[in-house]
Amino acid sequence: MAMVIGALRETVAGETRAPLVPEVAKKLAALGATICAEHGVAEAARIPDGRFEGVEFAGREEVVRRADVLLTVNPPPLEVASGLREGALLVGLLQPHRCDELVALLRDRKITSFAMELVPRISRAQSMDALSSQAAAAGYRSVLIAATHLDKFFPMLTTAAGTIRPAKVLVIGAGVAGLQAIATAKRLGAVVEGYDVRSATREQVQSLGAKFVDTGISAEGSGGYARELTEEEKAKQAAILADHVAAADAVITTAAIPGRTAPRIIDAATVGRMQPGSVIVDLAAETGGNCALTKAGEVVESGGVLVVGPVNLPAAVGRHASEMYSKNLFNFLTPAISEGSLALDWEDEVFAGSVLTHDGEVRHGPTRERIEGGSGGQA
Amino acid sequence: MAMVIGALRETVAGETRAPLVPEVAKKLAALGATICAEHGVAEAARIPDGRFEGVEFAGREEVVRRADVLLTVNPPPLEVASGLREGALLVGLLQPHRCDELVALLRDRKITSFAMELVPRISRAQSMDALSSQAAAAGYRSVLIAATHLDKFFPMLTTAAGTIRPAKVLVIGAGVAGLQAIATAKRLGAVVEGYDVRSATREQVQSLGAKFVDTGISAEGSGGYARELTEEEKAKQAAILADHVAAADAVITTAAIPGRTAPRIIDAATVGRMQPGSVIVDLAAETGGNCALTKAGEVVESGGVLVVGPVNLPAAVGRHASEMYSKNLFNFLTPAISEGSLALDWEDEVFAGSVLTHDGEVRHGPTRERIEGGSGGQA
Repeated sequence: MAMVIGALRETVAGETRAPLVPEVAKKLAALGATICAEHGVAEAARIPDGRFEGVEFAGREEVVRRADVLLTVNPPPLEVASGLREGALLVGLLQPHRCDELVALLRDRKITSFAMELVPRISRAQSMDALSSQAAAAGYRSVLIAATHLDKFFPMLTTAAGTIRPAKVLVIGAGVAGLQAIATAKRLGAVVEGYDVRSATREQVQSLGAKFVDTGISAEGSGGYARELTEEEKAKQAAILADHVAAADAVITTAAIPGRTAPRIIDAATVGRMQPGSVIVDLAAETGGNCALTKAGEVVESGGVLVVGPVNLPAAVGRHASEMYSKNLFNFLTPAISEGSLALDWEDEVFAGSVLTHDGEVRHGPTRERIEGGSGGQA
Repeated sequence: MAMVIGALRETVAGETRAPLVPEVAKKLAALGATICAEHGVAEAARIPDGRFEGVEFAGREEVVRRADVLLTVNPPPLEVASGLREGALLVGLLQPHRCDELVALLRDRKITSFAMELVPRISRAQSMDALSSQAAAAGYRSVLIAATHLDKFFPMLTTAAGTIRPAKVLVIGAGVAGLQAIATAKRLGAVVEGYDVRSATREQVQSLGAKFVDTGISAEGSGGYARELTEEEKAKQAAILADHVAAADAVITTAAIPGRTAPRIIDAATVGRMQPGSVIVDLAAETGGNCALTKAGEVVESGGVLVVGPVNLPAAVGRHASEMYSKNLFNFLTPAISEGSLALDWEDEVFAGSVLTHDGEVRHGPTRERIEGGSGGQA
């Protein structure tokens, strides 16, 4: 009997993304799997069930019960984890850093779970890199938010009555989100500066037509992320950056360290130096914010400066973010499917690196330490 | 004694624009005029009074009482018109088509009023063309609105997991707003089609990199505006356009005829043919809408299609819109100022064309006919 791949409709408030889109469902079916999706699986992404070919639609419980592999966007509710069969696979953005109760349940029920956040950032796994694909969506949207909140034009405008100067945009953090923000702000015609503690990003920033802000400090880290800076480094960085922040019409901050509170890059005093009408869009709002004034999910005004703390930006382009994410899942799963059956190769560093729980154990080191610690674990 | 140019703080809800910005105040002063502005004249555009050099700030009543020339954005409240001295000048976007009570009052009080909307669209007056400068702002913002409401990316996105196709954008109406919308949507990376009943706009649309939709109907009008189409022409135009609307991810409509209800271009059935998640941004919302479902100031959802009816879009970029508008006013006024005094040349077709009331008469033909009609006028 063919393996069953299940896909659930997301229940998190504000989520529009789906783990399955028609194109990917078709490809998975072509691998010999049976696809079973919850009614309305991608409705929030404006994809009606009727668009899916060869997919069996069912109620939530049935999908969970039948699934050999269950695909989700967000960590599923605990009752979903409880409903999965022992040995079933769960694949999604499982937020290993903050879903201890779910992880413990997955462990106890002997579910094999993979957190897409943990997929190693190696060349071969780029096509599975959901953090990157979703960060691209966030970077794109961040510029729309900045442009929408700014009371100036982004592009230079030459009119019969004179020339309007283009907006000055500063993007802090040159990861996928930051680079996409730089590219989008450039497209819109702004004068763009980019900055990252990893000075190796200089060329990437410059290749997009932006100027790189040089603070004389580098913080290359492993796995494509920045290492955390020392207090002294932070102070020096902040002082130099502050001048650039103060001079910008719009600042987009994208500095995040996985599993940690976001680094504080813009303090209240620096916001106070910005011109009234300027805008900060803080993509790290969900993990504490790169700006001291950021409140997740809110727009804070301080001295005429707007500080926007958007949450779940990829959901704002749910249709395309779903397409990308679903393809990431497909690329992740493909090597594990052989002739319509599951065949996980634990030697594969992608699976070995992204596994969260398997066979009654928490396999992800930091999560295991946090959950089971020195006290022998908590169920 | 030098002439006094007054500028008021706007009182219309949602208005952020100001008739005076520091750069223009300085230039007017250099012409020998005394500048007297209401406290907080440009605060809504995030320009504090402290930024203005050589401007006397005063209360509202004093500004009105002292002004030889009063500058406004919107038609002023009736009490302002009542407070002006006989023979004073009032210059602003006075909405001659719908402010009969104000016009009658200006006439009776022998105020010389100029409606910036009526400035002839001749080459020499381009630098005074406030409709164009404000339409550019509206066109730019319309694309931000479309991109914000669309659950897809505007640009093509090439990711490791595959390529995201760019959004398809259709801009209807290739006036200043439409052309700016086309340019902005192109900047953002969308695939753009443009359409206008005036087929002479084809080259302008194409020069911005957009494809021109050919419906085989032309409606060249006078003064840079489209003539109104016959019912038959409208039907044929609508049928061909409908196919393009149905295929678009985002449609921006900008078709307006001054002083008239906006032409209906997209009917409900056509909206019904669009894909769920698509967006219509109707810049004609304030004059009835180009789309049958448009509601001014609202976002209407119909079958998953969002119909956005924004009002006063230039106010969304109040800072830059104010700069442009204030420069338009300056360019308009300059020929009327000689050695610090008013010297209106009524032979000048700009003044002759844009005058609304003068010396106890309504000088604008259509407005006079509407107000004074065959019945001998109403005060």
